[in-house]
Amino acid sequence: MNTQKLVNQIKQKKSFLCIGLDVDLEKIPVHLLQEEDPIFSFNKQIIDATHDLCVAYKPNTAFYEAYGVKGWQALEKTIDYLNNSYPDIFTIADAKRGDIGNTSTRYAKAFFEQMNFDAITVAPYMGQDSVEPFLAFEDKFTILLALTSNNGSSDFQTVKSGDNQQMYERVLKQALQYKNAEQLMFVIGATKATYFKTIRQLVPNHFLLVPGVGAQGGNLKEVCKYGLSQNIGLLVNSSRGIIYAGRDRNFGKQARKQAFALQNEMTEILNQHF
Amino acid sequence: MNTQKLVNQIKQKKSFLCIGLDVDLEKIPVHLLQEEDPIFSFNKQIIDATHDLCVAYKPNTAFYEAYGVKGWQALEKTIDYLNNSYPDIFTIADAKRGDIGNTSTRYAKAFFEQMNFDAITVAPYMGQDSVEPFLAFEDKFTILLALTSNNGSSDFQTVKSGDNQQMYERVLKQALQYKNAEQLMFVIGATKATYFKTIRQLVPNHFLLVPGVGAQGGNLKEVCKYGLSQNIGLLVNSSRGIIYAGRDRNFGKQARKQAFALQNEMTEILNQHF
Repeated sequence: MNTQKLVNQIKQKKSFLCIGLDVDLEKIPVHLLQEEDPIFSFNKQIIDATHDLCVAYKPNTAFYEAYGVKGWQALEKTIDYLNNSYPDIFTIADAKRGDIGNTSTRYAKAFFEQMNFDAITVAPYMGQDSVEPFLAFEDKFTILLALTSNNGSSDFQTVKSGDNQQMYERVLKQALQYKNAEQLMFVIGATKATYFKTIRQLVPNHFLLVPGVGAQGGNLKEVCKYGLSQNIGLLVNSSRGIIYAGRDRNFGKQARKQAFALQNEMTEILNQHF
Repeated sequence: MNTQKLVNQIKQKKSFLCIGLDVDLEKIPVHLLQEEDPIFSFNKQIIDATHDLCVAYKPNTAFYEAYGVKGWQALEKTIDYLNNSYPDIFTIADAKRGDIGNTSTRYAKAFFEQMNFDAITVAPYMGQDSVEPFLAFEDKFTILLALTSNNGSSDFQTVKSGDNQQMYERVLKQALQYKNAEQLMFVIGATKATYFKTIRQLVPNHFLLVPGVGAQGGNLKEVCKYGLSQNIGLLVNSSRGIIYAGRDRNFGKQARKQAFALQNEMTEILNQHF
């Protein structure tokens, strides 16, 4: 996957929606629990019901690891299904990994080779030599945490250093110096809409992955006001608001309805700006 | 596991050695590749050969994830084997996880419940509400990255904020305010020996997990000079230097020899100080 293909898909679908596949067996329709692989069955039906309305899917690895080997199998089946059935869709492993160099390379192999994801989220705390191993993989994207949607983001991310620069700004600036920085994207929480103006000055062209619309309280229009780039440059994620919209046999339709509403909002915004 | 049990084990074995189980199929003895589960076979023999010389094992999850479902199965078998055969050993999932609250809880369940590890390493970038879900698990330890052993640690961890405080110092201080902070430990790289004096002033009592002795160039005596606490307070990790000491059928013996050398150094240090 490269940026141009992603942008083309967004323009074609009139959507920059990413759907988070954060599967919780306590929240999925009960009838699925009798199936051999309830997690994959759930994902497959959500994907089949929404794939024309979104441009990306983002399974968060925590929800799979919590079910052990079975969860990991369901994750592998989900990415295989996406790659085989909807090869144009952008796929993100929301894994928030990061370690010393040779170890980061292992994580990159896990998600870019063992499973064929297009992108992985990575935590920046360990610095350049923990991030660059991910960037070494061609046609793959590294989505670096910059300013996250949770309250704890103020503990370290917005702390100002001696030169009056907040930590997340330093992350953005330094990351632009990394080798293969063109393969970077950044996580910016939708709950931080007032920051998008500053952020777009620092990274005018990179894609931003924006979680926090919906359940976490972020507002789509506010995000887009300053978040859009010349090349669109936004992937806005919704998880719970879409995938748990219905709890009965019609859950696919209910999910589609929610995805359709967001896609409609996005179409309107795209028509205004592009 | 609680701190007192860990300290008792250290005093009994005269060792505060942690062995990193970072299994690379290209580095293990070739004859193991014919076995059904080469990763677990390797780990089992390393563990059997060294368990009386060390107090902890630390598989790094990256090395298992890189092999997909088979790797995850080998990780589960390894932790089960440790818990069943050597229940007193302290077990650390070196996973460097961290996410928003409900997601961090999933990771905690994966490593504390689905697999029965005593501890997990966690990245601090997302702040308090990303770390506390791990601390909510009784008799389990959260080992927070503070100052890591790699070069990239200078990118963000040692950056000074307006109040002249380095980021890793802020991490240490703030973490002490978290709920159940007594269940914290901190990762401090052995390559940062000069920092241990400052660190012990900030966290006089908490255990420090110290990677980077050996392959990464850290020195044990330098680490201990300021790193030891009244309650010992150190777990010093070695991975490659021990587990890849031999490449033939005698690899267990070779690993034992290296572990024995480190344990001997530790015994000498413990006899001097306690």
